[in-house]
Amino acid sequence: MKKMLIVSLIAVASCSSYAARQSSEPIKVIEPIVGLDTAKVELGKTLWFEPRLSASNTISCNSCHNVATGGVDNLPTSIGHKWAVGGINSPTVLNSDLNFVQFWNGRAKDLQEQAAGPIENPIEMAFSHELAIGTLKSIPQYREWFKEAYGKEEFTITEVTDAIATFEKTLRTPNSKFDKWLKGDDSALTKEQVEGYALFKQKGCTACHSGPLAGGQMYQKMGLVKAFKTDNPDVGRKAVTGNDFDKYVFKVPTLRNVELTYPYFHDGSEWDLQKAVEIMADIQLGQTLTPQESKKITAFLTTLTGEQPQVTLPHLPPSTHGTARPQI
Amino acid sequence: MKKMLIVSLIAVASCSSYAARQSSEPIKVIEPIVGLDTAKVELGKTLWFEPRLSASNTISCNSCHNVATGGVDNLPTSIGHKWAVGGINSPTVLNSDLNFVQFWNGRAKDLQEQAAGPIENPIEMAFSHELAIGTLKSIPQYREWFKEAYGKEEFTITEVTDAIATFEKTLRTPNSKFDKWLKGDDSALTKEQVEGYALFKQKGCTACHSGPLAGGQMYQKMGLVKAFKTDNPDVGRKAVTGNDFDKYVFKVPTLRNVELTYPYFHDGSEWDLQKAVEIMADIQLGQTLTPQESKKITAFLTTLTGEQPQVTLPHLPPSTHGTARPQI
Repeated sequence: MKKMLIVSLIAVASCSSYAARQSSEPIKVIEPIVGLDTAKVELGKTLWFEPRLSASNTISCNSCHNVATGGVDNLPTSIGHKWAVGGINSPTVLNSDLNFVQFWNGRAKDLQEQAAGPIENPIEMAFSHELAIGTLKSIPQYREWFKEAYGKEEFTITEVTDAIATFEKTLRTPNSKFDKWLKGDDSALTKEQVEGYALFKQKGCTACHSGPLAGGQMYQKMGLVKAFKTDNPDVGRKAVTGNDFDKYVFKVPTLRNVELTYPYFHDGSEWDLQKAVEIMADIQLGQTLTPQESKKITAFLTTLTGEQPQVTLPHLPPSTHGTARPQI
Repeated sequence: MKKMLIVSLIAVASCSSYAARQSSEPIKVIEPIVGLDTAKVELGKTLWFEPRLSASNTISCNSCHNVATGGVDNLPTSIGHKWAVGGINSPTVLNSDLNFVQFWNGRAKDLQEQAAGPIENPIEMAFSHELAIGTLKSIPQYREWFKEAYGKEEFTITEVTDAIATFEKTLRTPNSKFDKWLKGDDSALTKEQVEGYALFKQKGCTACHSGPLAGGQMYQKMGLVKAFKTDNPDVGRKAVTGNDFDKYVFKVPTLRNVELTYPYFHDGSEWDLQKAVEIMADIQLGQTLTPQESKKITAFLTTLTGEQPQVTLPHLPPSTHGTARPQI
């Protein structure tokens, strides 16, 4: 009886922390997505791993946003067609549907618009939408799958990118330690991690890194208080708006799964998460963290690693006589 | 009663065709492999998808032997480190444990020996065994997995390649239409496919393409009757033995899943399976096939596509401060 009472009290305590934390904490729980069209998800998964969307037939979406490695390639900037080196760090595909815009500079409004970019970027997949559609249409199985998913014989880049975006939406990472804690499980975090989270809020990190993504909800200047030292020439959002005040303004990246998504920053210059935290505090908030503080914040950040998606490799249907040959 | 009798008679007919075909046909059934050590398989799967076994951290075993595309990359020859173009067509990993030796020229006796090659080949992964082991040892989760799989703290390239080879052994493709037919299911093949198989035997293809792999059991000269026209300078087995009579002698490749493993031949020069059949008949057997004959044989060859392996992508453990950085 005594035991039951304790259990009940814990349950009540949990419920109330849950309610309290859910409403008051700046970072919100990530939930798995439901209700997506299965035919579109499956088709999108196949296209996600489809190297024939690239000129060389060797680069797929997964090459730079690898689901096996936190949805990134763990390179400062990606390697593309003919070993071209990319201009900016590849952001993670995990939970990416929750970003308010896509790309570092926000030039795509959603995942569907984003997915069209790399296919025809000469330093990424180096193909064209026309050639990509020609390739897919030359393969009877794809024609069948598109018909199943979209109810019509004809398809264009619109359906291709819609399917890819629909698959990407499945790539949520729920049930991180932090989300368990947000839901009321006090044992999910260590004392150091709780203290790190308190510091994260206290120092002002949540001014930008909030919401379910702990980021991805706004633009911010990189180097708000002090200039960010980098050799990377990217001007950020200025490239989209043409406005000088958008120079070095980027979308605030998500901190979900951040322990997996090194190296950090848009230039991929920092490999050490604790150092990245210290640099951010310095140049964005004008605060010098003690090693103890940055260590605690880093300990908290590792609790944002969620359950990684279980993705079974698709089997790509073979090319036909009509399929374009790889351009090596 | 009449119906039951007919069913019984069909069953008897099936059993006897099974027994007869199993013992008399030159191509044998492929069965799934059983009894492998699960810890080694799982570790090997992780290593199979591990780009940190390459200098650039972008190339894994799966890059050139893609389980999503018949265990190959569907390129004439593979793209390696810094976009180096390989010297010979990548053979399929599917069912590869059944080959009597590994590589086109047989320079590795088994999959474990083979797996050590690409890691330190400068035009493939361009790493070294020492650096690869250093990378894996810098990651605590790998140390733990190796201990679980091999029962000791220390590991070397021997355990790495053993784990990869153990995973590769799981990549069998059973239950092809042809295997169903071999097991007595007459309805598994069409009339054209059965006729194609009869021609395949009658023309002498099974002299080399026999056993469970329909190949992979012997060496043979490429251009036995007439010279094979190619720009590819590979001399085949002569590179291993130094003997002139081994010039242009290669391991006979498997025909399992051949509809997926284009382009064909060691130089990857032929994309069309029917044309590949005609060329083989001409230069290996001195026979000119009619288009009807090569079409039938091709129809038979497509029945060798088996159930493709279901592989769930692993989640690779993150690097640490001690992990070597990618060399781009």
